[in-house]
Formats: sequence, C-alpha cells, structure tokens
Amino acid sequence: MGREFDLIDRYFSRKVPAGYLGGGDDCALVPVAPGMQMAVSTDLLIEGRHFFPDVSPFTLGHKALAVNLSDLAAMGAKPLGCVLGIAMPSINEAWLAEFANGFYALADAAACPLVGGDTTAADTITLCVTVFGQVDPALALRRSAAQAGDDIWVTGVLGGPHVALQLLQGRVPPGCNNTAALLAQVRPALEQPLPPIAFSQGLPGLAHAALDISDGLLQDLGHILKASRCGAQLFYDSLPVDPALAGVSQAWQEEAVLGGGDVYQLCFTAPVSSRNAIQALAHQHSVLATRVGSIVPQAGQLSVTRNNGQVVSVAQQGFQHF
Amino acid sequence: MGREFDLIDRYFSRKVPAGYLGGGDDCALVPVAPGMQMAVSTDLLIEGRHFFPDVSPFTLGHKALAVNLSDLAAMGAKPLGCVLGIAMPSINEAWLAEFANGFYALADAAACPLVGGDTTAADTITLCVTVFGQVDPALALRRSAAQAGDDIWVTGVLGGPHVALQLLQGRVPPGCNNTAALLAQVRPALEQPLPPIAFSQGLPGLAHAALDISDGLLQDLGHILKASRCGAQLFYDSLPVDPALAGVSQAWQEEAVLGGGDVYQLCFTAPVSSRNAIQALAHQHSVLATRVGSIVPQAGQLSVTRNNGQVVSVAQQGFQHF
Repeated sequence: MGREFDLIDRYFSRKVPAGYLGGGDDCALVPVAPGMQMAVSTDLLIEGRHFFPDVSPFTLGHKALAVNLSDLAAMGAKPLGCVLGIAMPSINEAWLAEFANGFYALADAAACPLVGGDTTAADTITLCVTVFGQVDPALALRRSAAQAGDDIWVTGVLGGPHVALQLLQGRVPPGCNNTAALLAQVRPALEQPLPPIAFSQGLPGLAHAALDISDGLLQDLGHILKASRCGAQLFYDSLPVDPALAGVSQAWQEEAVLGGGDVYQLCFTAPVSSRNAIQALAHQHSVLATRVGSIVPQAGQLSVTRNNGQVVSVAQQGFQHF
Repeated sequence: MGREFDLIDRYFSRKVPAGYLGGGDDCALVPVAPGMQMAVSTDLLIEGRHFFPDVSPFTLGHKALAVNLSDLAAMGAKPLGCVLGIAMPSINEAWLAEFANGFYALADAAACPLVGGDTTAADTITLCVTVFGQVDPALALRRSAAQAGDDIWVTGVLGGPHVALQLLQGRVPPGCNNTAALLAQVRPALEQPLPPIAFSQGLPGLAHAALDISDGLLQDLGHILKASRCGAQLFYDSLPVDPALAGVSQAWQEEAVLGGGDVYQLCFTAPVSSRNAIQALAHQHSVLATRVGSIVPQAGQLSVTRNNGQVVSVAQQGFQHF
C-alpha cells in the first residue's frame, strides 16, 4: 500500500461522539455498556498486494485473522468475535477448505468465533476481516498513554518477516550461501504470525501505551511518541533479534529489526513498577517479553545505541522526526 | 452474485459458542453484557458487480451504509457504529469527497458513527462495510420467530428498485412511452434506499420475525417461512406498490413487486394484538407500514391471491417451496 493512500483516511476521519475513539489507534473504541468498550478493527487484504497468489490458503486464512487479532492485542482487548467478507473469481473447493481450516484454527485458539460474513464474486481474491473485542475503557492501551520514564517492551522476536519477504522477492543477503535454508527458517514468521493475544489481555493496568509492529519497530514506535508527545532511547543490543538472522550482515539485520514490518508482535510501554508483573505474565503465557529501552521527555527524539556506544542511524529505518 | 457463491458460506458456518447466533439471519448476534447482544453485519460491494462504475459517488456512499443498516433494522437493533474498508486503483479526491459526504449524511441521520477503517490500492473499487448495533437478546427479531396467525407487514413501497435496474440495463417495459421519466421516478429507490432504522428499534416486543427485502419479497419471506417452519397467505392487492409503477403492465408489476430485490425495506410478522401499536410506531416515524397477509401453519406453503380470487403464480417470482 502506497503512502499516498493515507490521504484517503482524511476523508473518513470526521469527529466521533463523546465516549468513542475514532481512527488513529490500533482499534476504534465504541461504548457498549457501563465499564465496557468494544474495540473494533477491520483490514482489507487483496491478492497480489497483500499476499502472493500462490500462498498456501491455510496460512492465508491464519494471517487474515492474525493481523486483526494483533490490533485487538495492541489495545489489550479480549476477542469477542469476527466477521469475514470474501470475494473470489471462481469456486475452488480445495482452496476454500484449507483457507477455512487455517482461519478457524486461529479463531479457536484465540477464542474469537467467526460469526458471520459475506461472499461474492470478484476478479481478484479479496478478504475483509473485522474483529471486535472488549476492554475496560479506563485501561485500554492507547498510543497516547506513554509516560516519560516508562520502559519500552517488545514481545516475540524481530526481523524474520522482513528477511522472508526480501528472499521471496529475490533479494539475496550478502554472504548468505544457503538462502533456501534461511527462507525455511523465517517464512513462518511472515506467513503465520502469532500475536500475543492471551498475554495482551493481562496488560491493561500494567502497561500504558501499546501498538502492534506492522510497519516496522521504529516507524510504529514513532506513532506512540507522536501521540504521547515524548521521545525514546532504544538499546540495540537488547532487541530480540530472530536467531535465524545470526548469519546475515549487520546492515541487513539492522534494516530487518528496526525497519522490517509484518511482525504482528507488540511494542508497549509500562512503568518500572510493572517489570516483575509483566515478566510473570509473559512466563504464564509462554511469551518472550523483552525490555528494549525507555521513554524520555524530549518529544520526537529517538536514539538507538549499541552497548559500545555506537549510534545506529534511525532515519534509514523508517523513523520520522516530528 | 451467483447462487453458486452460497457454496462458499458452507465453509464458514461452523458452530458458534452458546449465546451467539451465527450465520443465516440478517445479523450475527454476540453476547456482550447481561441483557445485551451486539448485532453485526458485513457486506462487500464491488464495482461492476454491485454498482455501476459511473454511479454517483454520493449515492454509492449512502447505499454502502444503507444495505448494512437495513440488516440491523431487520434485527430491531440500535446502531452503535460502523467501519469501512475501501480499495481503489488511484486517488480521485473529488470522488472521495462526494462518497464520504453520502456515507456521513446517512451515518449522521442513523446515529451510526463511522469509527474506523482501512484503505488500500486495488484494481477495482471495493467497499467493505461492517455495522454493529445493540439489541435485547430476548427480543431480537430472528427469522425463526414467526407464529401461525401473525400478520405479515411490509414497510415502504415495493417494485421501484427492480424497475430502475431493468431500465438501466436497457430493458423497456411494454407500453411505456417515457422511460426517462419513469427512470427518474424509480432511480432514487434503487440508489438511495432508506431502511426504516428508527422505526425498527421500536419493533422488539411488538413483532416476532423480521428480515430486510434484498432479494425480493417472496424469496426473502421464504427465509422466514423456512426458519419458522410455517407458511403464508399474501393479498396481492394489499401490497404497497410504488406509485411510479402505475403505468407498467401487470406482468412487470408482479415481477417487480414480488420478485424485485434491492428494496431494503422490512418484511416482518407480528401478532394481531400489536396492530395498533405498530401503526402508532409507523406514524411516529413517518414510515409506511402495511399489512399484506398472514402466517399460516402449513410449512412451506405460500399463496398470493387477488381480491377477485385470482391466484398469482409464485414460482416465477423467486419463491422456492421446501
């Protein structure tokens, strides 16, 4: 999707009523009952733009739901259900069965039942998934809630999806003499992301701000910094790099870890007092949660340093100062 | 959309948890709080299939939301909000502004705020609207709730959208010597349907079963009869025919009124004891509500008769016995 399509958003960002949260966060929030808001997210996925035409339908079914569950996780919302719109040129029963298997496997694991949908004919396979969940309005993990002094955390590992995408597009990392083996290691991270859905439901009350890493760590963290009017200090050597990237060059690794998208793990901020509780929550859900830096008061400032004091350039990796 | 696409639905109709209502009704129902269910509906609209490429973007924005609000109305649900996915080949700012104006005008009128969405590039204009509303679970207007002896009611008038579609596709009604004038009269019903949103929120507690007329009165009423295991007797001369159809032949009129889709008005059933309250509700909301027949115990039977005793053939108009 080209950046120019951000322009479209401008036409659909009119004011929402009091008690609602409109665009600009991972989910919209809708008041439904006292002490409960509904979090909603919707995504369009189009063949040839968001997925390769020859992708496994099972993993596509998984990913179509995963990218939306990731938005719920980024608000700390508990899934309530989802609906699916699906359009395709002709009926391929084997393809549909596998797509449905992949979709339902994740829906079951995430306790997010598929409750309805719409099916139609189209020239291109087009998917539209909408998920909804519930969250305490006082505790929803909004992008604007980071505070100076907060730790910055990341779940899972970084870099794999970016390297997989590069390899699938025919780019070969310098010095890599077995791209097939590398692709086999990183491809699942691209095609079957596993957002920390259960873990994230324990974050409200412990964490302040959160979002899911879809466009790249620095660019996405930039959204928190902008919404919260603060800055960040990241420690490169603390970042949880996908172990599969051990053999690639430092330049590739930095690009993949700091700028690589499609991760669908969380970046969140939390007060220092939450450290033990967050680690316990991560342990309980078998999620890797890593402290990777701190929120600083200087609005729009982001620095990434190595343990040896070396400064990593952030401009190349998608971070825009504001 | 071809009937063969019903096949796709089979892959996405697995069991939903207790307290949920899955596919097969106008909306899915999701339990969100004690005494409250959320009604959800989603629709994909694709250029060249669901709308003409040269349709006015203002009316398209209106209709994209209207067809979904119609599904909420058919459950008796009160709108809470909606999300919009929109894909298009390139950015046409004038088109987007008019589309947004049409969408927001109806969203404001229906108190259904647009709270979020997704925008992307695609070869074909593709819209995916998801609406959600709230309804008392005990009173939601399910298709399966019709009872023998119920009156059958229809809101609004019938036939206009079908005639408009025929004229736009170049078919000329026999004996009509001014198709342009006829099209001008019926086109708004096709392009800017106005489902009875406020009226329908008063129906829970008064009515039993309801659905919106999207595929044609007989075919849609058939869904109620099948789900409720009953039959119906309709009085053709009681049906609220669009006055614009006065000049067209009887055969065209029957086809348009009994078989014509895209109406987005309600067909509902209610006990005889609700007659006065329903008429008062209709009056309050300036909605035309017409009694057009009765539910009978014979499952799968549907007869349509004229006042002179003449029987109208139902097989031609989309009704399938079961």
